[in-house]
Amino acid sequence: MNALFASDNVTSACPEVMDAVIAANLGIAGSYGDDEWSLALKNRLSKIFETEVEVFLAVTGTASNALALSALAPVFGKIYCHELSHINTDECGAPELFTGGAKLIPMRSSNGRIDPSDLAETIRGSGNVHVAQPSVVSVTMSCETGTVYQLDEIKAISKIAHDNKMSVHMDGARFANALVSLDVSPAEMTWKSGVDVLTLGGTKNGCLAAEAVIFFKPEMVGNFPFLHKRSGQLLSKMRFISSQLEAYLTDDVWLRNARHANALAKILSEGLDSFSNIQLAYPTQSNEVFVHLPRDVIDYLNNSGYDINEEELDGKAVRFVTAWNSDIKDINDLLETLAQKY
Amino acid sequence: MNALFASDNVTSACPEVMDAVIAANLGIAGSYGDDEWSLALKNRLSKIFETEVEVFLAVTGTASNALALSALAPVFGKIYCHELSHINTDECGAPELFTGGAKLIPMRSSNGRIDPSDLAETIRGSGNVHVAQPSVVSVTMSCETGTVYQLDEIKAISKIAHDNKMSVHMDGARFANALVSLDVSPAEMTWKSGVDVLTLGGTKNGCLAAEAVIFFKPEMVGNFPFLHKRSGQLLSKMRFISSQLEAYLTDDVWLRNARHANALAKILSEGLDSFSNIQLAYPTQSNEVFVHLPRDVIDYLNNSGYDINEEELDGKAVRFVTAWNSDIKDINDLLETLAQKY
Amino acid sequence: MNALFASDNVTSACPEVMDAVIAANLGIAGSYGDDEWSLALKNRLSKIFETEVEVFLAVTGTASNALALSALAPVFGKIYCHELSHINTDECGAPELFTGGAKLIPMRSSNGRIDPSDLAETIRGSGNVHVAQPSVVSVTMSCETGTVYQLDEIKAISKIAHDNKMSVHMDGARFANALVSLDVSPAEMTWKSGVDVLTLGGTKNGCLAAEAVIFFKPEMVGNFPFLHKRSGQLLSKMRFISSQLEAYLTDDVWLRNARHANALAKILSEGLDSFSNIQLAYPTQSNEVFVHLPRDVIDYLNNSGYDINEEELDGKAVRFVTAWNSDIKDINDLLETLAQKY
Amino acid sequence: MNALFASDNVTSACPEVMDAVIAANLGIAGSYGDDEWSLALKNRLSKIFETEVEVFLAVTGTASNALALSALAPVFGKIYCHELSHINTDECGAPELFTGGAKLIPMRSSNGRIDPSDLAETIRGSGNVHVAQPSVVSVTMSCETGTVYQLDEIKAISKIAHDNKMSVHMDGARFANALVSLDVSPAEMTWKSGVDVLTLGGTKNGCLAAEAVIFFKPEMVGNFPFLHKRSGQLLSKMRFISSQLEAYLTDDVWLRNARHANALAKILSEGLDSFSNIQLAYPTQSNEVFVHLPRDVIDYLNNSGYDINEEELDGKAVRFVTAWNSDIKDINDLLETLAQKY
Repeated sequence: MNALFASDNVTSACPEVMDAVIAANLGIAGSYGDDEWSLALKNRLSKIFETEVEVFLAVTGTASNALALSALAPVFGKIYCHELSHINTDECGAPELFTGGAKLIPMRSSNGRIDPSDLAETIRGSGNVHVAQPSVVSVTMSCETGTVYQLDEIKAISKIAHDNKMSVHMDGARFANALVSLDVSPAEMTWKSGVDVLTLGGTKNGCLAAEAVIFFKPEMVGNFPFLHKRSGQLLSKMRFISSQLEAYLTDDVWLRNARHANALAKILSEGLDSFSNIQLAYPTQSNEVFVHLPRDVIDYLNNSGYDINEEELDGKAVRFVTAWNSDIKDINDLLETLAQKY
Repeated sequence: MNALFASDNVTSACPEVMDAVIAANLGIAGSYGDDEWSLALKNRLSKIFETEVEVFLAVTGTASNALALSALAPVFGKIYCHELSHINTDECGAPELFTGGAKLIPMRSSNGRIDPSDLAETIRGSGNVHVAQPSVVSVTMSCETGTVYQLDEIKAISKIAHDNKMSVHMDGARFANALVSLDVSPAEMTWKSGVDVLTLGGTKNGCLAAEAVIFFKPEMVGNFPFLHKRSGQLLSKMRFISSQLEAYLTDDVWLRNARHANALAKILSEGLDSFSNIQLAYPTQSNEVFVHLPRDVIDYLNNSGYDINEEELDGKAVRFVTAWNSDIKDINDLLETLAQKY
Repeated sequence: MNALFASDNVTSACPEVMDAVIAANLGIAGSYGDDEWSLALKNRLSKIFETEVEVFLAVTGTASNALALSALAPVFGKIYCHELSHINTDECGAPELFTGGAKLIPMRSSNGRIDPSDLAETIRGSGNVHVAQPSVVSVTMSCETGTVYQLDEIKAISKIAHDNKMSVHMDGARFANALVSLDVSPAEMTWKSGVDVLTLGGTKNGCLAAEAVIFFKPEMVGNFPFLHKRSGQLLSKMRFISSQLEAYLTDDVWLRNARHANALAKILSEGLDSFSNIQLAYPTQSNEVFVHLPRDVIDYLNNSGYDINEEELDGKAVRFVTAWNSDIKDINDLLETLAQKY
Repeated sequence: MNALFASDNVTSACPEVMDAVIAANLGIAGSYGDDEWSLALKNRLSKIFETEVEVFLAVTGTASNALALSALAPVFGKIYCHELSHINTDECGAPELFTGGAKLIPMRSSNGRIDPSDLAETIRGSGNVHVAQPSVVSVTMSCETGTVYQLDEIKAISKIAHDNKMSVHMDGARFANALVSLDVSPAEMTWKSGVDVLTLGGTKNGCLAAEAVIFFKPEMVGNFPFLHKRSGQLLSKMRFISSQLEAYLTDDVWLRNARHANALAKILSEGLDSFSNIQLAYPTQSNEVFVHLPRDVIDYLNNSGYDINEEELDGKAVRFVTAWNSDIKDINDLLETLAQKY
């Protein structure tokens, strides 16, 4: 029970995805993406995003983020991101490796999202040979505090970026959760709001291991195929990754999975918030709930068989994550356990 | 039909592996390798190799090779390899990326294997600050010409390496094929012959995508976990990789698969060699057959529905690869097609 | 006149240094540092710092800083520094290049110096494979706001660093200016306060181009000679760099030069501060004076032939720098020009 | 006496260069190349090369070569060079560092120069995502065996390079020696023969430390200023480098220096060749003489106070180098010493 709400990466793959992998395992197929699943995926993504996209696959969010950044930032580039962003805190230097040394500039704000006015003020040094060059802004959807950027926030950030000849990257590790939270179209949440390159995550929301780097402007692809291969993410039997995403994006599987996770997070959030000694650290807008728990509550839950992760967000808040297959009963159990004492 | 013998990476996964992945997809499990399949795999590999090993997983041979080299070569290091080796010709600079700029020194010999006496003569510059420092020797089993190093060859190379304070890496993308070809134990073919780090491939011999970096000397692991994470190869749902390898190595699946592929390659090789206008380019010792085909034979086969890959080995020879599930009927068909004309 | 107080790198070399270069240009000498000047310099530095040091030379502060950091931080390392520090703002990613991708963590404080308590709170993630590893703290003397760390500040920072198994780097581009400001010994300001590696600058204080990376713990040198060569900073005719520093450090030339620059900065600082519409941005503790100038004052000075650099410190303050050969007359002229109007 | 003919980097700077440095040390000057000497140098080089060039300075050949390559090769690029070339053997991985991991492809030929037909055959993999991409050919003038490429050789190599969409780099560490040897114009030996970027050496032929990266096609400069700064080669007091080269290139100083060195090498070469037990390893075409010396001759010379460098060229030949200020008397002494015994 202990890892129940630890993360959305402790879950299994959803049946639609698993079935697709099994089905893809029939007969021979072209290698390195030259297969029917990869082609179908590219077409499907172009349709979903309402524009012709170029797609490259990877098996971890760390790789797909770092790869995307390597397409956008020169070795002497600056990548503006929130200080809590996954690329800044949880990838052990992968962006620096893949970009050849680009510099992440951590922005601060209390809610985990980049503030457009902070960004405008922070960008500097363009054209000055002594200064790493402003190159990319990276936003996360949903972001590391479980909140989501509103479309006008993304647009404001994108405008500042483009006005400064920078590109916009979206880390969409929890893209579907943000999408159903905002209730907008994939196109609206990305390129129509100025996003140039998206890393679309499937792993946390029902896949085994499947992430996509999606270029909305094919002309930005450039030498990316070589960067992709060089990074060790061009699988020979790529059909096993593309088939996952193809199933994930078919018949709204991804949206259903995300809606379920978000809905249960909402229930959990409201339940926790109803205790007088528990405060939400951030509003719950996707499938992550952050709360301030008093020491005795943490101890009580740990003693009751839960494994509370105090490391999250520098110990300042405790995180509960729901997933595509979270069980309402487990949430009720947790809330009841708390109610028995508080 | 056209990709039939193009590569062993066009094949599906074998049923034992596929079943294991399906079985691993039950319930929640710890992430990033903290799961029962990963633990079982480490134990199994330690048993198979008759020594306590440390294991790190990856999804491509390119990544696992480059990662292994990054553990062994400093940024200013030299890695001696055969000029035909996969790390030198087919990884688009991944070893250079992962090592931070180590230099591959291509050795030449007519058979695709490093000649120990050439190696001894080529190593130079140790301690000279102007010269990239000799650091690693990398051998491939089975190698890129489809032949295998004999144990005494590996031992001779390892001795030279260790005498020069260098490490020995084995690229085991086709490890099982070489193992059954030599009919020795995994320990004999590796650490007992001086190999320090092995990249063990599963993908070409029945897995979906599963490669392992295996350290035979745990003290050499050092900071490798950080290099592993930083490379984007630490999967959150690692059970989907470790379960593949765990099944692959259970009940001799890997050996059976390799024996089948090798046996069919032998049949194909002898069949091709029986034509007076076809010459073997190298002796067939694993699951790859290299032949010199006259232009008219290539044209005839292409017109007959085969897709002959002339790019292999700089066009100097044509490669046919058999796999764990190659069908004897397809080989007979190919030979018969040839016999109809020649 | 316009560049008069723009920087201490617009000045010429002092006569003692120039004479030494001329004298070094006699006859043949061993290359790559195998010469009498380089040997003498190592001995002199060991004497000055009261401990056996290892010395490597470079021609720019950017190179010497980045080299020093490359000796201390692994590719997946974190380097804590002030956000205004030269390594963070003015080296166009050189630290990232030389370290192979280490991550600079910018600390903030209003005075340009790292606050020990901030540092203690910011260090995190040690041993966590997802997190770039805390490896180095870098302090600048004198720092980018023209102030100096007190010895107890350096000691407090060093203690935190060492308690966390991190190293301490000092960027001593203006080392002599800080030294005479604190009026302590070179040993006290460095290794006796916990500094592991110093980059000692000569260029800004009377040399043509001469910087030294100084290891106080020879056992930390490790593979540094190879990193040094690989960076393109191992000059064949190294005597032309070592002779500069040797002269610079002889007969207190460096201290006299720094005292002069600091003294004139003090006069300039007090002069500027006496105007009611001019405020010091930071206390003047070395040879840099930072002031807030109203727009009309900037315009007036520019129209009077001065070239005010508004880019400094993001436009928040204007910088005046004095040097080893600054002329009191030029300072009086500047103050008088101001007095004529304000 | 022992280092007399060891290298041309054991020599002092010539008086014209030294005087220029002294003269440049007057008054204040703009930093980072914004000075009159740097401007004059750019103009002079444009005149000498009969085309508008872009110039960036460095202090070592290693840095200037690696920088030039970083402008021409992507991180996944291949750089074709001779296996004896300085970039391949004597820069400890600097090209790999500066380019971010490009791969040097060592070509072999008995004379130290790339054979155009070998090159044509070796280039492969263009557009194939698995293969590091052919990007640059680098030739050395004069090359590491002391011979020079003829213009038609350079043209043939350049044509092959450009036909394959690759660039041509010339390592001109001994550019002047090759130039006077061929007796052609600087333009003929470079861009008129297809060279895109030249690293022009001054250090070995009369400078203290001065090398230039010269772009013959300004449109190829691109982001190079940032790469230059990031590498730690953008000196704040750049006038001390540009003044050297400006003097070096004025009034034929460079050509006179090179002619002297070449002439004395010719005398030495003929003198050595006259001994029956000494054979020239390569024809002497610039200022380096390579000979095969029997063991007893080496011992005899070492015992006579010479310091014979047997490490050169893997011990296969002994190198004697003459310089701008080599003394005919020293050559006569050496020959006489030999004559006393042989």
